[in-house]
Amino acid sequence: MTAGSIAPLDYASLKKKFQPFLSRRVENRFLKSFWDASDISNDVIELAGGMPNEKFFPVESIDLRISKIPFNDNPKWHDSFTTAHLDLDSPSELPMSRSFQYAESKGTPPLLRFVKDMVSRINRPVFSDEMQSNWDVILSGGSNDSMFKVFETICDESTTVLIEEFTFTPAMSNVEATGAKVVPIKINLTLDRDSQGIDVDHLTQLLDNWSTGPYKHLAKPRVLYTIATGQNPTGMSVPQWKREKIYRLAQKHDFLIVEDDPYGYLYFPPFNSEDPSENPYQSSNLTTERYLNDYLMKSFLTLDTDARVIRLETFSKIFAPGLRLAFIVANKFFLERILDLADITTRAPSGASQAIVYSTIKAMAESSTRSSLSFKEAMFESWMQWIMQVASKYNHRKNLTLKALYDTESYQANQFTVMEPSAGMFIIIKINWGNLDKPDDLPQQMDILDKFLVKNGVKLVLGYKMAVCQNYSRQSSDFLRLTIAYAKDDDELVEASKRIGNGIKEFFENYQKKGEK
Amino acid sequence: MTAGSIAPLDYASLKKKFQPFLSRRVENRFLKSFWDASDISNDVIELAGGMPNEKFFPVESIDLRISKIPFNDNPKWHDSFTTAHLDLDSPSELPMSRSFQYAESKGTPPLLRFVKDMVSRINRPVFSDEMQSNWDVILSGGSNDSMFKVFETICDESTTVLIEEFTFTPAMSNVEATGAKVVPIKINLTLDRDSQGIDVDHLTQLLDNWSTGPYKHLAKPRVLYTIATGQNPTGMSVPQWKREKIYRLAQKHDFLIVEDDPYGYLYFPPFNSEDPSENPYQSSNLTTERYLNDYLMKSFLTLDTDARVIRLETFSKIFAPGLRLAFIVANKFFLERILDLADITTRAPSGASQAIVYSTIKAMAESSTRSSLSFKEAMFESWMQWIMQVASKYNHRKNLTLKALYDTESYQANQFTVMEPSAGMFIIIKINWGNLDKPDDLPQQMDILDKFLVKNGVKLVLGYKMAVCQNYSRQSSDFLRLTIAYAKDDDELVEASKRIGNGIKEFFENYQKKGEK
Repeated sequence: MTAGSIAPLDYASLKKKFQPFLSRRVENRFLKSFWDASDISNDVIELAGGMPNEKFFPVESIDLRISKIPFNDNPKWHDSFTTAHLDLDSPSELPMSRSFQYAESKGTPPLLRFVKDMVSRINRPVFSDEMQSNWDVILSGGSNDSMFKVFETICDESTTVLIEEFTFTPAMSNVEATGAKVVPIKINLTLDRDSQGIDVDHLTQLLDNWSTGPYKHLAKPRVLYTIATGQNPTGMSVPQWKREKIYRLAQKHDFLIVEDDPYGYLYFPPFNSEDPSENPYQSSNLTTERYLNDYLMKSFLTLDTDARVIRLETFSKIFAPGLRLAFIVANKFFLERILDLADITTRAPSGASQAIVYSTIKAMAESSTRSSLSFKEAMFESWMQWIMQVASKYNHRKNLTLKALYDTESYQANQFTVMEPSAGMFIIIKINWGNLDKPDDLPQQMDILDKFLVKNGVKLVLGYKMAVCQNYSRQSSDFLRLTIAYAKDDDELVEASKRIGNGIKEFFENYQKKGEK
Repeated sequence: MTAGSIAPLDYASLKKKFQPFLSRRVENRFLKSFWDASDISNDVIELAGGMPNEKFFPVESIDLRISKIPFNDNPKWHDSFTTAHLDLDSPSELPMSRSFQYAESKGTPPLLRFVKDMVSRINRPVFSDEMQSNWDVILSGGSNDSMFKVFETICDESTTVLIEEFTFTPAMSNVEATGAKVVPIKINLTLDRDSQGIDVDHLTQLLDNWSTGPYKHLAKPRVLYTIATGQNPTGMSVPQWKREKIYRLAQKHDFLIVEDDPYGYLYFPPFNSEDPSENPYQSSNLTTERYLNDYLMKSFLTLDTDARVIRLETFSKIFAPGLRLAFIVANKFFLERILDLADITTRAPSGASQAIVYSTIKAMAESSTRSSLSFKEAMFESWMQWIMQVASKYNHRKNLTLKALYDTESYQANQFTVMEPSAGMFIIIKINWGNLDKPDDLPQQMDILDKFLVKNGVKLVLGYKMAVCQNYSRQSSDFLRLTIAYAKDDDELVEASKRIGNGIKEFFENYQKKGEK
């Protein structure tokens, strides 16, 4: 099927099409339930399920104090917060008598509805039928849990998975735990936003010539795992035209796309070297609509005529990682297989986490001043406003870090290039070897550089440690990854940038000295 | 090694001994981490890990209102609660800046310490070395997650697992998802607390004659999964002498014991038919010490010279199921393998859940009046006091349900026997066929009985639906399981008991009528 001919896929078609993608182990998944609630009407006393009455719970109520703005430590903002109250009866859609009780493995209905609505507004799958009944969302216990559940469902020993040559390496662990094999794919490390990210020509070549290529001993790939937006570690985003090409490759070579998108909301407008503090997020012109349409990269779901995309999102970066709360978007057939796995592993993610997220967003909506919105719209709008504030803060941090790096002596001596990120939490710094020979023992040299950095009081991640295959990416792994997420304030980022400059400078002094010997 | 000769097992011995018990898939488990925090001293700025600064979290603080007694709805108790406050800095051992952040897959240290201390006080493993360093605890996302992690670690297609013939059937799903085979073992369904539970003679026969027995086509069992205390569905507890025999069988036939104990704290003193409301939990003589020593059944860990016991506990029944918080106790070698799996699946359970549990127990300890205790002892003591109050309430519910069942016309016509439970949340009602022939189509007759019960307005679980193998347990599955946990109050349990009596009576009227035709 080509992108032109869109026909909604029903469950039977999805099943027929995607059954062959399931791992061998899926067939052993079967929850042996011993009762169902189907014939219980209101006047029947239910003594079947082993659920404790909610009055056994020691916590009677919970009160949350919710920021209206991240880093709310300016005294004048101090009263700028709202509150949420939870008890056994409230909030009415998700009271503690439900959130603290055994609950649906898929997630509690109010939070699921919110999440599905959000996906539908921002990245509605092309293959969706009118009722949006052929795709769905399942909550999970964080993105790692999502990855496990997805790969366990679609990978086994015979599966080959394509992954960007530099990646969040724990994802490889999830893939390899199933017995599947990982193949790195080239990425273009460039500042040019229109050509950065996955090298599509290379990927095309690789796939078109698989049977004679370097991985001919492996089965043809059945899955592409990609962090397409604000990639980890590179901070780069695959531009739209490449997404379209990649999707067509997925159709041609019949592989699934697992799109991991923990950072996508943290979009960075281009850095303005004339005015480093320019932050378009602070502009009153930036409406939610503009943010969604002009800033955010579109999910592969928005190209997905075939229902072959599985999208992973998380609350970790925009709410809190300790909640262990994330979600998976997929066609209904895959989603049910993933739900089968949830039933026999984690069941539902923490109801406490779900209640906190739901109640927080609800409180944000209730304290919103735009009374013209329906409650559903207000929930969405308020959450997007929060996210934009988070993105704004990240953009500010990115700007000041870039400026501080550019101000270093080392940068001005052209010892490194900053690969300005287009989204996310990371900045990579590429080492410039200049007239010097690029070392043969690049990883060892990067380890030495690391020592100079730590000596100067700053800890970064070495690029080669995030390579899918260190050998494959030998020539391009001479970079460092830093995060702007964790530092306690602006000063710390500026100070860290100085230390990075000093560390690189000292490294080169030492490197040249040794070279001269 | 016999129970007499106790020598602490070190890690190397554990590894040598238990490596052969690992599933094939364990070897693919390897977290590909790309940085470590080992060389980060205080004055190094950490820009490595992708953790958001905690001031990005929208929730600034949480206040919990904590009951001092379950079912705290009596007006005179209404001010009987305590509170806990959580914010980015408090409580100091587990502030939200840690609990809401990425955290240790194993669980946060303060809660882990509490749990390990609790296990150590109540069920310290015999094989423990002096430092308690050869066994450990890992938190999980609920008992279902525990089971998944344990079985995925010790089971694959070649494994045979013994399970009580009636069980919490979802546990079978966890076992079978690994490809392992399940074999039912007989249980003695009797009121006699000294002989109820696993039929040890039968088990001995089965194991001693495995190669010529009914399951000779399967490998010899490598695992016994048992809910030894307050068994689900039977409510029975394996007496101490049987535990010792079972442990010796485990040694002789070299299998592991997975002891699932969600209900063990809910011990029931024998029902006093002379004084049905007698509740020894209400007696001022019942100290924590007496509760622990005279009431609670001892874990198989307390017999475990060989380190072959894996114990599962949960906060679901004594705190709240929606937290999805449980823990696994095992020897250090197994525990590390389970931790490897956590790293590539769920990572840590919800930090919100952990923070709520820890802060609640801490607040209970702080509001305790026994100031002579150390803080650690006060935490333990307060939590046990809460648990005893929960158990007291369950015991009260059990008593009044038994009385109400005994008051029914149906019971007095000897149409059923109540298998008074010794612990837990369940009561089973065994149908007496009297002079009538026990039906050949027992499951079908139980379905008919179910219809009479629902018609009378009460929903129970049919015994045969909880059989590991319906054929194997055909003759003994003519029972119903009811839970005393969920009903909203005493009146509802009394009313439900009446309806059960009426339903059984009507069933027999119909059954006899048909028999006469």
